[in-house]
Amino acid sequence: MEKSSCYAKILFIILTSFFLIANSKTTLKPHKPCKRLVLYYHDILFNVTNSANATSAKVSNPPNVLGDFNFGMLVVFDDPITKDQNLVSTPVARAQGFYLYDMKSKYNAWFAYTLVFNSSEYNGTLNIMGADIIEEKNRDLSIVGGTGDFFMARGVVTLSTDAVEGFGYFRLKMDIKLYECY
Amino acid sequence: MEKSSCYAKILFIILTSFFLIANSKTTLKPHKPCKRLVLYYHDILFNVTNSANATSAKVSNPPNVLGDFNFGMLVVFDDPITKDQNLVSTPVARAQGFYLYDMKSKYNAWFAYTLVFNSSEYNGTLNIMGADIIEEKNRDLSIVGGTGDFFMARGVVTLSTDAVEGFGYFRLKMDIKLYECY
Amino acid sequence: MEKSSCYAKILFIILTSFFLIANSKTTLKPHKPCKRLVLYYHDILFNVTNSANATSAKVSNPPNVLGDFNFGMLVVFDDPITKDQNLVSTPVARAQGFYLYDMKSKYNAWFAYTLVFNSSEYNGTLNIMGADIIEEKNRDLSIVGGTGDFFMARGVVTLSTDAVEGFGYFRLKMDIKLYECY
Repeated sequence: MEKSSCYAKILFIILTSFFLIANSKTTLKPHKPCKRLVLYYHDILFNVTNSANATSAKVSNPPNVLGDFNFGMLVVFDDPITKDQNLVSTPVARAQGFYLYDMKSKYNAWFAYTLVFNSSEYNGTLNIMGADIIEEKNRDLSIVGGTGDFFMARGVVTLSTDAVEGFGYFRLKMDIKLYECY
Repeated sequence: MEKSSCYAKILFIILTSFFLIANSKTTLKPHKPCKRLVLYYHDILFNVTNSANATSAKVSNPPNVLGDFNFGMLVVFDDPITKDQNLVSTPVARAQGFYLYDMKSKYNAWFAYTLVFNSSEYNGTLNIMGADIIEEKNRDLSIVGGTGDFFMARGVVTLSTDAVEGFGYFRLKMDIKLYECY
Repeated sequence: MEKSSCYAKILFIILTSFFLIANSKTTLKPHKPCKRLVLYYHDILFNVTNSANATSAKVSNPPNVLGDFNFGMLVVFDDPITKDQNLVSTPVARAQGFYLYDMKSKYNAWFAYTLVFNSSEYNGTLNIMGADIIEEKNRDLSIVGGTGDFFMARGVVTLSTDAVEGFGYFRLKMDIKLYECY
């Protein structure tokens, strides 16, 4: 009697554990990333006269524009990524890709880019895409893949505007949270 | 004798379960999404005179075009997403991103965009990319990430053409199937 | 005494197994893909006179260019994918999407495209994005999703330059490694 109830208890524990494990993929939590990095993105738009410093350039110039907020303007960039807010700090990565403006009633953007890490700390890439709803304080984009030190990573990057100087320069804070790390 | 064979059986069951669980990631099934949404995408291309209604605009105009099917035409959009086929229904989301035409022998497109949900039901984004093989009735694109209520989601969206009115307007049915929900 | 120590051992084995299984998602290994394909990508850039053979076309032509390496040049393609290096072999897939050049000090590119398989072997798509650091021998891009026979796939594709003939033609070797197969 005693013994079989003991077996029953053990079996119960085992089966409960099975259940928990089988569902463990559903337990990713926004506040529990497996890796987190806070970095700064600096963009200096090419204006014909600043080729020495420029890190991005407009590649489309629609003849007739929809609205007053650069709808359709597509900008290709190779932007330095630093650990602090200082533009001239040694970059720990480059952000390579593009953004475009996509709203006729206000400024709103869409990004697709790769963070190319090549430092003593990290070697590899993170691939990112998503909407940059500029009017919101924090906007989340998806980290859809990674290579090298970030092999097969996935996650979310939260962008926030850290500085804007007209159309010449802007700085974004990137709060990178990975939820799949291998 | 009896007892040890009983232990053996229990062990066998446990080990089999282990094996099944360890391989459980391989059991995603196309017909068993963890979430499904059917929505409609409306695109009204800017033609210089319709700026009040237009939701998308051409941003490239290659001087010499390859073939007769708009090869290389890139369109940026901020399109309303509705629950029914009616263009003027209250949008439950916006689709922000771009498509381009990429075939010289027929109409064929490629999309990359974000569904930005901002309704009483959902708040968050789904990021989508893939080929839109227009000649096929149903074409599958990848949902490569999500944020907010769709935190870390992945899945497949099946597009089908629901209406076309020349180059002025088209409507796509989007059958959104998520297979990773958190 | 003997018996309970036996139970203890069994429990220990079971709990250890639990732990291993619960962490099994962390065991993806770069050298152990669940599927591998080596394919070749052929790109023939449209130069106005070669419309019969061209498979890609420039869609942006920034009036003032940043640097001497085509910064901002965006190319849309519908390129044949073959199993061997021969351009005229029967394609097993098409690569549809775009690349752009994004560095002012050297040639460097960024890709986003879909491999559309339509052969006796495979039917479905793989969606790919990432940086193509041309100066490196091997560069890794992310496979961020798949459909059809590649339902919900993820992985890494390693590109290497296999041939270059001026601006007219280039061939890439694509070493496709999937780590999530369903």
